[in-house]
Amino acid sequence: MRRPSPETTAATALAARYRAVRDATTRLAAPLSAEDCQIQSMPDASPTKWHLAHTTWFFETFVLEPSAAGYRAFDRRFRVLFNSYYNAVGKQHARPQRGLLSRPSLDEVRAYRAHVDAAVQDLLERDAVDAALAAAVELGLEHEQQHQELILTDIKHVLATNPLGPAYRTALPAAAADTPAPLRWHAHDEAIVEIGHAGGGFAFDNETPRHRVLVPAGALASRLVTCGEYLEFMRDGGYARPELWLSEGWDAVRAGGWSAPLYWEQRDGTWCAATLAGERPLGAAVPVCHVSFWEADAFARWAGARLPTEFEWERAATGVEIDGNFVEQGALHPLPAAPGAGPGPAQMFGDVWEWTASPFVGYPGYRPTAGALGEYNGKFMANQWVLRGGSCATPRAHVRATYRNFFPAPARWQFSGIRLARDAGR
Amino acid sequence: MRRPSPETTAATALAARYRAVRDATTRLAAPLSAEDCQIQSMPDASPTKWHLAHTTWFFETFVLEPSAAGYRAFDRRFRVLFNSYYNAVGKQHARPQRGLLSRPSLDEVRAYRAHVDAAVQDLLERDAVDAALAAAVELGLEHEQQHQELILTDIKHVLATNPLGPAYRTALPAAAADTPAPLRWHAHDEAIVEIGHAGGGFAFDNETPRHRVLVPAGALASRLVTCGEYLEFMRDGGYARPELWLSEGWDAVRAGGWSAPLYWEQRDGTWCAATLAGERPLGAAVPVCHVSFWEADAFARWAGARLPTEFEWERAATGVEIDGNFVEQGALHPLPAAPGAGPGPAQMFGDVWEWTASPFVGYPGYRPTAGALGEYNGKFMANQWVLRGGSCATPRAHVRATYRNFFPAPARWQFSGIRLARDAGR
Amino acid sequence: MRRPSPETTAATALAARYRAVRDATTRLAAPLSAEDCQIQSMPDASPTKWHLAHTTWFFETFVLEPSAAGYRAFDRRFRVLFNSYYNAVGKQHARPQRGLLSRPSLDEVRAYRAHVDAAVQDLLERDAVDAALAAAVELGLEHEQQHQELILTDIKHVLATNPLGPAYRTALPAAAADTPAPLRWHAHDEAIVEIGHAGGGFAFDNETPRHRVLVPAGALASRLVTCGEYLEFMRDGGYARPELWLSEGWDAVRAGGWSAPLYWEQRDGTWCAATLAGERPLGAAVPVCHVSFWEADAFARWAGARLPTEFEWERAATGVEIDGNFVEQGALHPLPAAPGAGPGPAQMFGDVWEWTASPFVGYPGYRPTAGALGEYNGKFMANQWVLRGGSCATPRAHVRATYRNFFPAPARWQFSGIRLARDAGR
Amino acid sequence: MRRPSPETTAATALAARYRAVRDATTRLAAPLSAEDCQIQSMPDASPTKWHLAHTTWFFETFVLEPSAAGYRAFDRRFRVLFNSYYNAVGKQHARPQRGLLSRPSLDEVRAYRAHVDAAVQDLLERDAVDAALAAAVELGLEHEQQHQELILTDIKHVLATNPLGPAYRTALPAAAADTPAPLRWHAHDEAIVEIGHAGGGFAFDNETPRHRVLVPAGALASRLVTCGEYLEFMRDGGYARPELWLSEGWDAVRAGGWSAPLYWEQRDGTWCAATLAGERPLGAAVPVCHVSFWEADAFARWAGARLPTEFEWERAATGVEIDGNFVEQGALHPLPAAPGAGPGPAQMFGDVWEWTASPFVGYPGYRPTAGALGEYNGKFMANQWVLRGGSCATPRAHVRATYRNFFPAPARWQFSGIRLARDAGR
Repeated sequence: MRRPSPETTAATALAARYRAVRDATTRLAAPLSAEDCQIQSMPDASPTKWHLAHTTWFFETFVLEPSAAGYRAFDRRFRVLFNSYYNAVGKQHARPQRGLLSRPSLDEVRAYRAHVDAAVQDLLERDAVDAALAAAVELGLEHEQQHQELILTDIKHVLATNPLGPAYRTALPAAAADTPAPLRWHAHDEAIVEIGHAGGGFAFDNETPRHRVLVPAGALASRLVTCGEYLEFMRDGGYARPELWLSEGWDAVRAGGWSAPLYWEQRDGTWCAATLAGERPLGAAVPVCHVSFWEADAFARWAGARLPTEFEWERAATGVEIDGNFVEQGALHPLPAAPGAGPGPAQMFGDVWEWTASPFVGYPGYRPTAGALGEYNGKFMANQWVLRGGSCATPRAHVRATYRNFFPAPARWQFSGIRLARDAGR
Repeated sequence: MRRPSPETTAATALAARYRAVRDATTRLAAPLSAEDCQIQSMPDASPTKWHLAHTTWFFETFVLEPSAAGYRAFDRRFRVLFNSYYNAVGKQHARPQRGLLSRPSLDEVRAYRAHVDAAVQDLLERDAVDAALAAAVELGLEHEQQHQELILTDIKHVLATNPLGPAYRTALPAAAADTPAPLRWHAHDEAIVEIGHAGGGFAFDNETPRHRVLVPAGALASRLVTCGEYLEFMRDGGYARPELWLSEGWDAVRAGGWSAPLYWEQRDGTWCAATLAGERPLGAAVPVCHVSFWEADAFARWAGARLPTEFEWERAATGVEIDGNFVEQGALHPLPAAPGAGPGPAQMFGDVWEWTASPFVGYPGYRPTAGALGEYNGKFMANQWVLRGGSCATPRAHVRATYRNFFPAPARWQFSGIRLARDAGR
Repeated sequence: MRRPSPETTAATALAARYRAVRDATTRLAAPLSAEDCQIQSMPDASPTKWHLAHTTWFFETFVLEPSAAGYRAFDRRFRVLFNSYYNAVGKQHARPQRGLLSRPSLDEVRAYRAHVDAAVQDLLERDAVDAALAAAVELGLEHEQQHQELILTDIKHVLATNPLGPAYRTALPAAAADTPAPLRWHAHDEAIVEIGHAGGGFAFDNETPRHRVLVPAGALASRLVTCGEYLEFMRDGGYARPELWLSEGWDAVRAGGWSAPLYWEQRDGTWCAATLAGERPLGAAVPVCHVSFWEADAFARWAGARLPTEFEWERAATGVEIDGNFVEQGALHPLPAAPGAGPGPAQMFGDVWEWTASPFVGYPGYRPTAGALGEYNGKFMANQWVLRGGSCATPRAHVRATYRNFFPAPARWQFSGIRLARDAGR
Repeated sequence: MRRPSPETTAATALAARYRAVRDATTRLAAPLSAEDCQIQSMPDASPTKWHLAHTTWFFETFVLEPSAAGYRAFDRRFRVLFNSYYNAVGKQHARPQRGLLSRPSLDEVRAYRAHVDAAVQDLLERDAVDAALAAAVELGLEHEQQHQELILTDIKHVLATNPLGPAYRTALPAAAADTPAPLRWHAHDEAIVEIGHAGGGFAFDNETPRHRVLVPAGALASRLVTCGEYLEFMRDGGYARPELWLSEGWDAVRAGGWSAPLYWEQRDGTWCAATLAGERPLGAAVPVCHVSFWEADAFARWAGARLPTEFEWERAATGVEIDGNFVEQGALHPLPAAPGAGPGPAQMFGDVWEWTASPFVGYPGYRPTAGALGEYNGKFMANQWVLRGGSCATPRAHVRATYRNFFPAPARWQFSGIRLARDAGR
């Protein structure tokens, strides 16, 4: 009997992981009809069908084309059709028109997935999977996991836009607590901290290079801001007091007619919010969600606090077990913090992405990945803000303490929420 | 044996016609997938699914609600969802968001159609169908036929927008002639002419009242303008010479970057046009199609002619047999004029809607239909232009010499073309 | 002693008229500061300075360049800078940027006027002024008179936009009547009527050719609609009832937040309107002014009437003495109809331009003037509406029964008002 | 003889400084006509007249109203009319309509200035000028100096927009050098650096609190990037290569049709740029100017370098004499670096504002000034970028090493340029 080499073992593990991640995507789309998968409800969001195809395009373009000799494209025209924003790969179908493609059909996209999956599996079952190939596959899987989350946030927007209020899934776990755990503060001293990926395991280029940052003394809140607390802000005139807002944020409030987070509606005096199981009354202890950076910042100012920097967040998250309300839990909605508190801040991972006070810029010495994949993160390092910690729609294996998500300040359709911080000596 | 009363006979005929028209709509949508039927490619156009539902809503709202005692709505929320523009009926789902409704599904819309069809049939099978009910059903059927045409023009836009260039139908009849019939002029003298519907049979309110118009002497072209003639205009700098255009038309040319009719593309030096069977090389003798009023007007000026008024058109069409290239012929594209010429102008009916020089306004003494149905035509009597004669996508039974179609000057996605006219003594 | 030839006499008269018209323009601008003359308050309007320069450019381009041998341009760059929309003359400075030109200064523009005036006078004092030259000068003077009116309407918009509410002129004649003359109807029978300029004296090309029109029987109101009547429309929910409006008009109401005519404001419960002498309380018997076609049409529908066609208006105006509240009267605001009624409708000339139900299109056989001047009217014959009769800002000598003014339906900054008409037998 | 108290001396000095700064503003506006002072050429810029009035409003609102008992406003309506963006003070005249106010006239605004100046002088000549009053006056003067620079940048935009190409001043000092000084690198080690205002003398709240920052090792360029170097970037396809640009920057290039810095034009093959003395051929050794953050960032990437952070810039500027090409020098345009090099980087102060890689956010522990003046800087701390060092339009006394200017990434109409930096070990 032939003993597998270590490379073979690694390749086998990668092939297994490939299957698992790709299957997870398929399962996420399973409750949706072809019509659901067709719709693009705003330029920022994409149709489910597009997500299914684009993630496949990613493997075709960055794994099969360079590595799979003799690979034949499923359809050469998909190279343009499902390119998101890689100028180095070539032209792209216009982003706001992703919802106008009834063809290829959902069935054809599934066939496209099967075609590419077979070719990738075939590649990974060979004896020699070199480091470059393994890295490209690994990046493709992390990329796929990002789109798994987007499938959920984008279809939530599609369904919530529909006056019939359809649900993605009928039953969601009920929120346990009605009253939130008391909010406490976890203080830290000034220190030079190592920030960024330390090596070992996957990381995106924007998590590197690891570098030293002087973090001032301060404190982090023990849990996320709740819907109940956010309602207090609203009742105190939060959306009507310009002094609480950054100037552009105040412009957004007025231009958008904002008076509550996205998906909130008042029904006969009761505040409700759309969830992936349809509209539900708000839970007072449930973390507030679907707020923009503008709202997170204004709430923090109203509360006499501020948003954490990404550095003090990462410092606090380092060493914390990556556990929490992720997509695997099936809640698909943030949940109240558990009453029994651990030694550090709770809810650091899962539930909602936490807006930070940090603009998304490159770390000192940052170099994007070479080639087309250098467009993955680096070219977006302006006018966006870092979010940390993952959400109830994120796969658990996808996040880590050094992970940097980023969105523009007005974005509200992600599962984005608020953790407060404050300066030392307050 | 009981003899049917005349009313019963009429009702039976109406029920038969109801079934025939409704079935024709179903057949038009048959080649389309649920995804095709979902898409709204621009605010002016609507998804096929919306057309299927809205025409059904029309019968539910204007036939069943007033006349069918005990009728239960299929879904009360559809009253808003599928209301197009009837303010008197109530609120409307925003027009540009018709494509964002994955629910109800196509299957549910089909069930909606069946539900309403059953109730209407039931109503028509009673002994007494009064005049008001018969009129409402008749209007609903004419309305349905208009949407049959829109299903074709709108899906053509959807498919032509797709870079994969899918076809609605694979085989279309080939254009017979390569060289067009020679263009001749049919002159008429000044005369007072009766214009508008004379009674007997259905007509829209905008075709009334019949009234006297003094039509000056002039002449109409013996056939439609062809693609070959339009190419000459293009080669002569038609799209680059402001002196040929109305001022707003010239603005449209520059703002839209227009240099050819909608759907025309040059492939390796050959001009092609999208058809419902996919892209095809232009036929020189085929009537030009998918031009705006601006282009029709500019072409006519370039040709030393003008567009006909709707009055001289109607005068020439009166008494002409309503025959031609309608939707029933299955060409779904304009066809060259037959070489053998009749006594009057050819191609008056079918092929393409003919832009006239007449702004769409009410006839002297015009009164809209009472009630919500008064919004059908009257409120659009400004800044639109009359088109006459029907097209290759129009049901033959739907048009007549007095029929007034209308669209804004920039509209190009209808099967709209050009017939020339000229003044007397030129 | 040498007797002047008839041509000399005509030329002398033309020179005198030239001086008189040009001087009238100067007088209109006299109360304004250089800063006032600089401002363009919206793209539709132009700065006074621009009007002063453009009318001069018109003589330079269409009189001096073709006819004055050896004429040297004041500044060659003005050819582009002050070209309004004549593509045949060449490029144009972008219309919305007319207010961004601090140079040439107002003083320099006055010098430009003097330069051109001297050259034109010189030309007209020669013995031989041929018909083409005389026609070009005459057209230039009529053009200048149109801009005299625009100077007043445009500066009214500038001043009314200023929160300080400055006035063009401090004292305006007070409106005499508080209660309007009773409204009566002047009926007419069906008849074939000669419409358009009959020759003899100046007319614009859009008033030709004279042609026969069959005018149906109907009736015209004896006077203009008053502010008091318009207030009744408002109090009856006029701006909140979609059934009263054309579809595009209703869109304009909502998009613009319209709830009253332009320049109307409610101050402590009293309705006031900006005038060229500052804001004043409304006079109930004063003709309503600064309404769009949409509002004129909606008011007429509310009143159970309609707007007149341009043909029945011209028929009624033919033979009526051209007298009324013109710019020479100095009111610069419409005035109540005189109580003593004449044999026909009153206020046909002056006070306010009367919106008609007639889209602005060419008369049968219309041919624009040859050359660049053909752009004067012809290219605007789409999506505009004919107004008749002149206003309180129009020079008396400028109007006539066949005169066709035209503006797009949403325009409100002209002195535009409403006369009702109705069908026979109502 | 009475000896002045120290407070009196300080007040006398403040009064003298008040006169000097206010007079400098007047002198800057002196070459401009009332028409020049009227124009707002884009929403970002303001008319000179508005600057003259708003700076006066600032003293009226923040100095006279709280401190001058019995002060009577020049015109109460100016409180709204000349409020820029202080929500706590009340309503504001809409920013894009600042150019629509012909009244108050320039003369009236000058009278307004005199009225307020007299009241402020009167206040400062009293015996007791307390610290709060002195601080408010001082802030008003620094504010006035900011608007002195804006008067120049905004009128430059007005004049450059005019096709006649008028000049603010006819003679500007010629650029001496044709070839730039060689570019060298000044390296620095990693260090914890004190950043922000240390107390003593005026600073804006955004320069505080002084705090510790860990600055990584790196190097700064010895001088500014020149026009010659920027032309190389252009000739190397700089504006056509997406890989050089941030994603939003590339969007700006395409949407704006950018192919060179603002104000650059090619005339017969020679590149010229608008200056305040009219259009001039480019000087190869002159610092490039009027580039956006997008362009500065793209150029740096093309050059294999990066922009400096504001922290390494401040570290290098600390202790450097504040000398250079400021507004007092009268060049009103950047000048080549002097060939003889000092020990550190040259051109740190004056010439052009240097875009940094640092987003404009609050320093750790930042607290805005209390009250309405807290809106001065704090509410703009999002989606803008820090610029450092002052420009040829900045008063020398206005800048310092800790000074933080800020503009959005697309802004090009300021005197903004580029200094390169690089990481250690390259």
